[in-house]
Amino acid sequence: MLKLYYSPGSCALASHIVLSEAGADFEAVRVDFGSAEQTKPEYLAINPKGRVPALITEHGILTETPAVLAYIAQRYPDAGLAPLADAFAFAKVQEFNSYICSTVHVNHAHGGRGKRWADDPAAIEEMKRKVPETVFQAFDLIEQGMLQGPWVLGADYSICDAYLYTVARWLERDGIEPARQLPRVTEHRARMEQRPVVKAVIEEHFAGTS
Amino acid sequence: MLKLYYSPGSCALASHIVLSEAGADFEAVRVDFGSAEQTKPEYLAINPKGRVPALITEHGILTETPAVLAYIAQRYPDAGLAPLADAFAFAKVQEFNSYICSTVHVNHAHGGRGKRWADDPAAIEEMKRKVPETVFQAFDLIEQGMLQGPWVLGADYSICDAYLYTVARWLERDGIEPARQLPRVTEHRARMEQRPVVKAVIEEHFAGTS
Repeated sequence: MLKLYYSPGSCALASHIVLSEAGADFEAVRVDFGSAEQTKPEYLAINPKGRVPALITEHGILTETPAVLAYIAQRYPDAGLAPLADAFAFAKVQEFNSYICSTVHVNHAHGGRGKRWADDPAAIEEMKRKVPETVFQAFDLIEQGMLQGPWVLGADYSICDAYLYTVARWLERDGIEPARQLPRVTEHRARMEQRPVVKAVIEEHFAGTS
Repeated sequence: MLKLYYSPGSCALASHIVLSEAGADFEAVRVDFGSAEQTKPEYLAINPKGRVPALITEHGILTETPAVLAYIAQRYPDAGLAPLADAFAFAKVQEFNSYICSTVHVNHAHGGRGKRWADDPAAIEEMKRKVPETVFQAFDLIEQGMLQGPWVLGADYSICDAYLYTVARWLERDGIEPARQLPRVTEHRARMEQRPVVKAVIEEHFAGTS
């Protein structure tokens, strides 16, 4: 059985959704960021980066959302979560997920994790100030074309949708008015929340949190 | 024929190396960052992100280094540049490349591209100050284990090696003394430079630059 280490509301939500969409037999294990559990030796033995997600498999441990999502799609091909048979189409999936990981998520992280890149409180505050602008810029490319609609890849639902949904949930916190500034991304978010699997995952993922 | 848009010394070097290692028929087209060519309408029509690499294929345009590298490995399977037949091993390749892209490269970018995340010159300076620390932290995980040796995946050379080599070339500029602080990464860099294909790519990639 697979085991997914996650923190509620983190980017690990994407892996949580995709595991459920794939019909995988897995256990979701919560890591308590509130008590900095991700920095303790027990968790660092699982993921030395001190981050989530981490997926425990019978072959070893896997981290980094784009890698985890593509792995689930390949492991459960019948779920049809990525265009596995077409190398270029599969690469476009990777391109989208890599962009979310290295640009969208990184811009967002300057709001709450500025101390990764600066120590001076004024600099950390300045990064936070710019987040609404940089996150909007990153999402605007998605709004303007990467999100083909109704799903990211067009007609077919894929792992990209779970990842986009996960980071789009952060928009309000990033100082953006989604309905006004990013209407297509906002519609996509609502469309995701109509999926029974997504509803069920959200319930489990956030259970007991406020 | 494939066409690779690159800027000398950027992360596009990894794609340049891997295309050559694959024996691909391709043309390398230089984008002049000195005159901000990547921000002009002609280039934005190719890659709206205003970044390199961009790979033009008969199916469409592909961006984001992890996606480009995996695509080349899949398109030229005979070159043996990734463990394509083993989903978990392939996922570990993606994990490594995703880490380079979203952590190593991002930490490095705070040295020269701080204005992406702040406007205040003092904050940009503060980010620059912390780069030797954050880049070292990111590389130390590679030094301590992700780089299995002699190549990233162990005995087999892969797309990961070209990517690691590309970002390890930036270490001195990032205020790190590679030989003292990261001896295994430094050995790997030297090992890469012994490969005839890498030597030839470097010569073409940097031709006419100082």
